[in-house]
Amino acid sequence: MQLRLSSGNVLNEKVHKVGIIALGSFLENHGAVLPIDTDIKIASYIALKASILTGAKFLGVVIPSTEYEYVKHGIHNKPEEVYSYMRFLINEGKKIGVEKFLIVNCHGGNILVESFLKDLEYEFDIKVEMINITFTHASTEEVSVGYIIGIAKADEETLKEHNNFEKYPEVGMVGLKEARENNKAIDKEAKVVKRFGVKLDKKLGEKILNNAIEKVVEKIKEMIR
Amino acid sequence: MQLRLSSGNVLNEKVHKVGIIALGSFLENHGAVLPIDTDIKIASYIALKASILTGAKFLGVVIPSTEYEYVKHGIHNKPEEVYSYMRFLINEGKKIGVEKFLIVNCHGGNILVESFLKDLEYEFDIKVEMINITFTHASTEEVSVGYIIGIAKADEETLKEHNNFEKYPEVGMVGLKEARENNKAIDKEAKVVKRFGVKLDKKLGEKILNNAIEKVVEKIKEMIR
Repeated sequence: MQLRLSSGNVLNEKVHKVGIIALGSFLENHGAVLPIDTDIKIASYIALKASILTGAKFLGVVIPSTEYEYVKHGIHNKPEEVYSYMRFLINEGKKIGVEKFLIVNCHGGNILVESFLKDLEYEFDIKVEMINITFTHASTEEVSVGYIIGIAKADEETLKEHNNFEKYPEVGMVGLKEARENNKAIDKEAKVVKRFGVKLDKKLGEKILNNAIEKVVEKIKEMIR
Repeated sequence: MQLRLSSGNVLNEKVHKVGIIALGSFLENHGAVLPIDTDIKIASYIALKASILTGAKFLGVVIPSTEYEYVKHGIHNKPEEVYSYMRFLINEGKKIGVEKFLIVNCHGGNILVESFLKDLEYEFDIKVEMINITFTHASTEEVSVGYIIGIAKADEETLKEHNNFEKYPEVGMVGLKEARENNKAIDKEAKVVKRFGVKLDKKLGEKILNNAIEKVVEKIKEMIR
């Protein structure tokens, strides 16, 4: 069966060898404004949009996610479980002709699996790259991107509630003491959020989202050069 | 870890028990205007959008697809392979609290797996439903929906090319002799396409897409009543 690789809105015939996978987290508190599956919803949105714009294959999502021990704001898995799920998707993706895999990751803790990517490349004789699109947790950037995608409940009252760091310590990780003690970058971000609070900035959300999609599209173009 | 189930744009706390899965096909000719992964791209778009609008979990896509023996316009798998992939996704979905699975299917041939849904329900003690959103193959409806989503190359010249049923027998299945002989419904549709041709109707595409998303959203609401 000869497939029509140049049909439709596709960059070129080679793009059919590229598979995009969304990675985030499903069970993670994000204050009042954002849902617990914020990270995977943002990752899925960006991954699918970039696939539509280029013709690359959208292979779905990785369900498990992982996190640093000292960050306690959700339910996560061991890095090995994320790795094992990736193995499954790559194995299935190879069956439909994918040779280059691009993982769009929108949850900071998943950076812990980057060390596995070389093993995947070696085992399956493929190319795997990961793009990390992450934000200060549940803060102005993520709230604004979430709003543009449609997952945020960002009325004035809920936003006010969201800024109650006592009640929602995960927001900006302001109230995650152990995380702040163990990670300087987290502590620095928390200080900024505590001082300036979390706002909804629709223009910012749009800009960040478009830049993120553009970044993935550029990476896909690079992968088929 | 207490998860904030009512946070964000979610119908209610129960919606977190609903998982949406996209099912289509990745390797199937769709004339000149549409790409070979049209069905899974449309299914993914509808499934993700409905998940965003309701708060249901988007669990990704099923990579294998199946087809009737007599329809030869792509590369497909046995129904059992689709079933086995669904088993994997359901097993993983249960781990994050999903109890009700909704499969958004945009490839007619996958109706062959409907007989497996009861087995899945029995094996995993869960609820599985499938919504079929299918069109006359690569014809006006699908071209128009594909255009709205962004996967179509629908300039005048390509559309003209698309209507060359000699060169693209799969369009409307006009030139798929075996399929038309074996299936009256396919034959009937092929006659209509042969007579009226394939056009781009942006308004129609928008209307069909919105209705499809609405249909999935209503089914999700029903599943959490």
